[in-house]
Amino acid sequence: MPPRRSRRTNRVSSEFGLIRLLRAQVAGPGRDVFKGIGDDTAILKTSASQWTLITTDLLAEGIHFDPALSSFEDIGYRAAIANLSDIAAMGGAPRFMLVAIAIPRTCSMGQIQQLYRGLMQAANPYHVSLVGGDTSASQDGLFLNITLTGIVKPRQALLRSGARVGDLLYVTGTLGDSHAGLNLLRKGHQPGRAVMKSSQVRWLVARHHRPSARVAEAQWLVRHRLATSAIDVSDGLSGDLRHLCEESKVGAEIMIASLPLSPACRAYAAAHHLDPQRIALQGGEDYELLFTVPSTQHSRFERLAASTTFRFTCIGSITSKPAGLRMRRDVGGSQPLPITSYEHFRSPSL
Amino acid sequence: MPPRRSRRTNRVSSEFGLIRLLRAQVAGPGRDVFKGIGDDTAILKTSASQWTLITTDLLAEGIHFDPALSSFEDIGYRAAIANLSDIAAMGGAPRFMLVAIAIPRTCSMGQIQQLYRGLMQAANPYHVSLVGGDTSASQDGLFLNITLTGIVKPRQALLRSGARVGDLLYVTGTLGDSHAGLNLLRKGHQPGRAVMKSSQVRWLVARHHRPSARVAEAQWLVRHRLATSAIDVSDGLSGDLRHLCEESKVGAEIMIASLPLSPACRAYAAAHHLDPQRIALQGGEDYELLFTVPSTQHSRFERLAASTTFRFTCIGSITSKPAGLRMRRDVGGSQPLPITSYEHFRSPSL
Repeated sequence: MPPRRSRRTNRVSSEFGLIRLLRAQVAGPGRDVFKGIGDDTAILKTSASQWTLITTDLLAEGIHFDPALSSFEDIGYRAAIANLSDIAAMGGAPRFMLVAIAIPRTCSMGQIQQLYRGLMQAANPYHVSLVGGDTSASQDGLFLNITLTGIVKPRQALLRSGARVGDLLYVTGTLGDSHAGLNLLRKGHQPGRAVMKSSQVRWLVARHHRPSARVAEAQWLVRHRLATSAIDVSDGLSGDLRHLCEESKVGAEIMIASLPLSPACRAYAAAHHLDPQRIALQGGEDYELLFTVPSTQHSRFERLAASTTFRFTCIGSITSKPAGLRMRRDVGGSQPLPITSYEHFRSPSL
Repeated sequence: MPPRRSRRTNRVSSEFGLIRLLRAQVAGPGRDVFKGIGDDTAILKTSASQWTLITTDLLAEGIHFDPALSSFEDIGYRAAIANLSDIAAMGGAPRFMLVAIAIPRTCSMGQIQQLYRGLMQAANPYHVSLVGGDTSASQDGLFLNITLTGIVKPRQALLRSGARVGDLLYVTGTLGDSHAGLNLLRKGHQPGRAVMKSSQVRWLVARHHRPSARVAEAQWLVRHRLATSAIDVSDGLSGDLRHLCEESKVGAEIMIASLPLSPACRAYAAAHHLDPQRIALQGGEDYELLFTVPSTQHSRFERLAASTTFRFTCIGSITSKPAGLRMRRDVGGSQPLPITSYEHFRSPSL
C-alpha cells in the first residue's frame, strides 16, 4: 500500500474506511457543539458572543513531508499554514496553537529549533499564541501534531454545506503552483526540457514551501456576508470541490479556461509537456480558498472586490445534485470532472 | 539513547534541552493567556465567566505503549485518562476532545476501532464530546495525539505554583500500582517468587491499563477552596513533587511511612524483594493527584473529606526552598529525596 496523504480535521473520511466508525463516535450538533465532523474545523458554541473553531493535524515524515526536500524551517512553516488555512476556510480568526512533536534520534536540537522557527514565522502575522505542547521520542520518523483554535461570531462561520444551486464558484490566488514546486524539488528541472527561468523555478518551490493561508480574504468575505460556503483547497481543487458539493448536496460545473494559473506554472507545464489546467484541478496543498457567492450578489461582490488587493477568480457555478460534477472547455460540451484527490508522495500522473 | 518518556503539556522541559527554546516561544501571561507553559494545561481567558483549559499529548508506539503488552482498547483508554488527568490536575471539567492518529500498515481497522472504543469508554463518564480529529498513514509505528479542553471558573484553577511553606501535602488513591502492573506485564510473575494471588496480579495490571482520572476529587477541592496547588502524578511522585516545588519555589518533606500503598502493591513488592515505598515514590503513570492544603484548613479538610468516598492521604508538608526535597523514615533523621523521574520503557531499577 503506498503512503497516503492525511484526511484532515473532520475529514477522517473514507481513508481506511474510518468514516463510518468516526461519524458514529463524533459528537453531532448539540447544546455546545454547532458542528463536529464534516467541515474544515469543529465549531463550538463557547459563549453567546463568540464561537470557537478547533482543528488538529498530525503530520508524518515520509507522508506529509520529506526532510530531504524541505528544510525544517519550511516543514514547520507549511504545517502551520495547513492549520491556519483550516481556520481561514471557516472565516475565523486564528488564536491559540499547541504543538506536539515526536523526535527520532536522527534529529538534532538545531533542526527542531528551525522547525519551531518556521511554525512561528507562519503564525506570528496572525498574532497566534503558542500556549502549549508536548515532546516525545520517536523510534522512527518525525511526527508533528498541531492543534489550532480560532474564533468566529455565532452563525457567521463559512460552512461547506451552504452552497446553493445558481451560486457562483470562486477561488483565491492561483492553483497548481505548490504541486509544480514539489515536482521540481523531487525530480529537478529536467535537462532537455524547454528552459524555465530560474526565477520561476524558485517561485514555484517557494509556493510549495511557503504557501499562504487566506485568512484575510475569508474574513473579508464574512464581514461583507458575500459567501454562502467555503473550503480550503488542500487535497486539490477537484477533490475539495467534491467535499463542498457533498456537504451542500449540490453539483457544480467548472469552466476549465477560467482556472487561475500563474505564469510560472504555465511555464512548468509547457517545459514538461503537461496540461496546466489538469495540474490546477488535481495538484494539492495550494491552501487557496474555494467559495460560493450567490448570483444575486455577483455585481456587489465584484464591485467590493475591486477595491481590495485580493485575487479572486470565478471558475464556475453550482448546479443541482443530479447534474454531478462537470467541467466545460471553451469548445465542445461539458464532461464529467475527473476526481483524483491529491496524494502527496504518490506521484499523481499529471 | 534509550527511548524516553514524554514530558507532557507545558512540561516540554529539559528533555532534548528544549525548555529554553520553548519557553522563549510560548506565550507568557497576557490579555488572553493566564498560563502558557509551566502547568498541566494552558489556561485561556476565553470569557469573563469561564476560562478554557487546553492540553495536547502525542503518544508513540514503543515509547508510551506497546501493543504486545496492551490491547488497543486499553491503549486508547489510558491515552484518554492521561489527558483527563491533566484537566483534573487544574480542577477543571473536561469538555471537548480531538484525536489524531497515524496508522502503520500493520494495524487493522478492527484494532483502530478498539482504540477508539477505549478512548470513548474513558471519556464518556465525563460527557466529553469527540469533536474532530485527523487520520494519516505512518511509515512505521502507531502515533496517537489527543487534544483535550476543559473549563474552569476564572482564577479557580489549581496551579502548580500555589504551594506555600507549612502547607500539608496530600495524594489521592494509592501509588505504584501502575508500575507494578506494567512490570508484571513485561516480566510476568516470576516463578520461584513468593506467591501472589492471581486476583492481585489482575488488579495491578488493571491499574496500569485502566487508571482513574481524579476529576471528581479535584472539582471537590475547588468547590470547597481547600487546595493551594495541585499536579497529577504521571512521572512518579518524586518527579512530580519536584515539578510542583519548582513552580511554587518551595521545598518539601515526605513521610515515607505515610505513602498510600495497596495490598496488591505490597504483595508485589514482597514477592519480588522490592521496597514498596520506593515503587510508590518512583513508579509512574499513577494519574493520582498530588495537592497541598494550608495547615489552617487541615481540620476543615479532614472533616469535609470524611463525608466523601474519596481516598486522601497526608504524606508530608511544604518547607522552604533552601531545605530542598527531603524524606523522613519512622526511625532516624531526614535525608534527600532521590529524584528519578519515571521513564516508561527504560526499566527503572526499582
